[in-house]
Amino acid sequence: MNKMTQLVLIRHGESTANRDNVYTGWSDVPLTTTGCQEAKAIGAKLATLGIDFKACHTSVLQRAIMTSYLVLEQLHLNDLPLFKTWRLNERHYGALRGLNKDITREIFGKRQVARWRRGYASVPPLLEKADNDRRYANLDPRAIPRGESLKMASARLQPYYQANIVPRLKQGEAQLVVAHGSSLRALIKYVEAISDTDIDGVEVQNGEAIIYDFAKDMTLSDKQRLYD
Amino acid sequence: MNKMTQLVLIRHGESTANRDNVYTGWSDVPLTTTGCQEAKAIGAKLATLGIDFKACHTSVLQRAIMTSYLVLEQLHLNDLPLFKTWRLNERHYGALRGLNKDITREIFGKRQVARWRRGYASVPPLLEKADNDRRYANLDPRAIPRGESLKMASARLQPYYQANIVPRLKQGEAQLVVAHGSSLRALIKYVEAISDTDIDGVEVQNGEAIIYDFAKDMTLSDKQRLYD
Repeated sequence: MNKMTQLVLIRHGESTANRDNVYTGWSDVPLTTTGCQEAKAIGAKLATLGIDFKACHTSVLQRAIMTSYLVLEQLHLNDLPLFKTWRLNERHYGALRGLNKDITREIFGKRQVARWRRGYASVPPLLEKADNDRRYANLDPRAIPRGESLKMASARLQPYYQANIVPRLKQGEAQLVVAHGSSLRALIKYVEAISDTDIDGVEVQNGEAIIYDFAKDMTLSDKQRLYD
Repeated sequence: MNKMTQLVLIRHGESTANRDNVYTGWSDVPLTTTGCQEAKAIGAKLATLGIDFKACHTSVLQRAIMTSYLVLEQLHLNDLPLFKTWRLNERHYGALRGLNKDITREIFGKRQVARWRRGYASVPPLLEKADNDRRYANLDPRAIPRGESLKMASARLQPYYQANIVPRLKQGEAQLVVAHGSSLRALIKYVEAISDTDIDGVEVQNGEAIIYDFAKDMTLSDKQRLYD
């Protein structure tokens, strides 16, 4: 198989919400010191592969943006175009946001929480009002979620992938995506054509990279996972 | 005068070459610890003005990129679009690059060095061969300088300013530019329509900001300098 180009997905390093076991979604929490180290470590590891990246794509949330900075620094690619888009944001956890994951299990029961977390089309309890955030001020108000299933997150992510990542891959330009646990699950599901039920078992750790090789006809020819 | 929008220029914080008094130009040297502090300090000061920036533009050199990161962090605007372009690079110092400024005076004489540094159209000794750098691989080889006068730097900077900054200002969107001593001098000369001889006296310090207010008809209505 003729290797054409590569797509690398990286999940941001540990955030304060990861550390505190809290639902975050669109809340803009920073990396912890451990998270910064994870980002540098995966960047350094990725650098040894010598992939000739041409662009990096990330969300508008600082934990992903900072991870991008730290990875690009390790790759000696600070000058690479860095695109920030709300479409790569984490899945919006609605009214679960800010709640401790153990406490939500006590309040709503294990089975309900498992459904919200893992059911592909399960929508968490919605916020009463969408966020009034400068970052989303130019969006159609109907596009700003008050809570999302993984399916809904996937639906707003795919147009970006199709319009901004696939065309570059087709030109043979390796692309880096630095995003979030669930937005990456949505992307992985799409790239690997995983079923709605099988996506349940897919997890990406903080500071983990997934490397896809595409053949010249844009079929997937290889996948590897890279851990710190 | 009806204030419409603002353009803010920031010179990067102290680099290792600034510290060592060495000509740099297109060499990609990092910020010193002092330089990082200068960047944060001007960012924090700028934050108090509450300007509603919509985009940031910088060069492809890490001392400007890192300064952008640190300033955007202080502004709580990490998610802002950050455009990196070689057209905002420092003036290319040709064969003077890497030389200590005092030593060049000893070698070439004070008057010659003063002419190279300050004469608007004075070209420094050229490199024999242009840099073979990944960053400039897609440019027309004739566009890659082997050394530049301030006039030459201005000529490659202006198309970017006209195409990417002015249209955004005309839409009332405040713009931030983080660049270099001489590329900012070229931009200031253009924005303020300073003569070829008077530009000689214009200096921007590391970590200094210049704030331009434009009226609705895009005439300059105010200018202030902001220091750490």
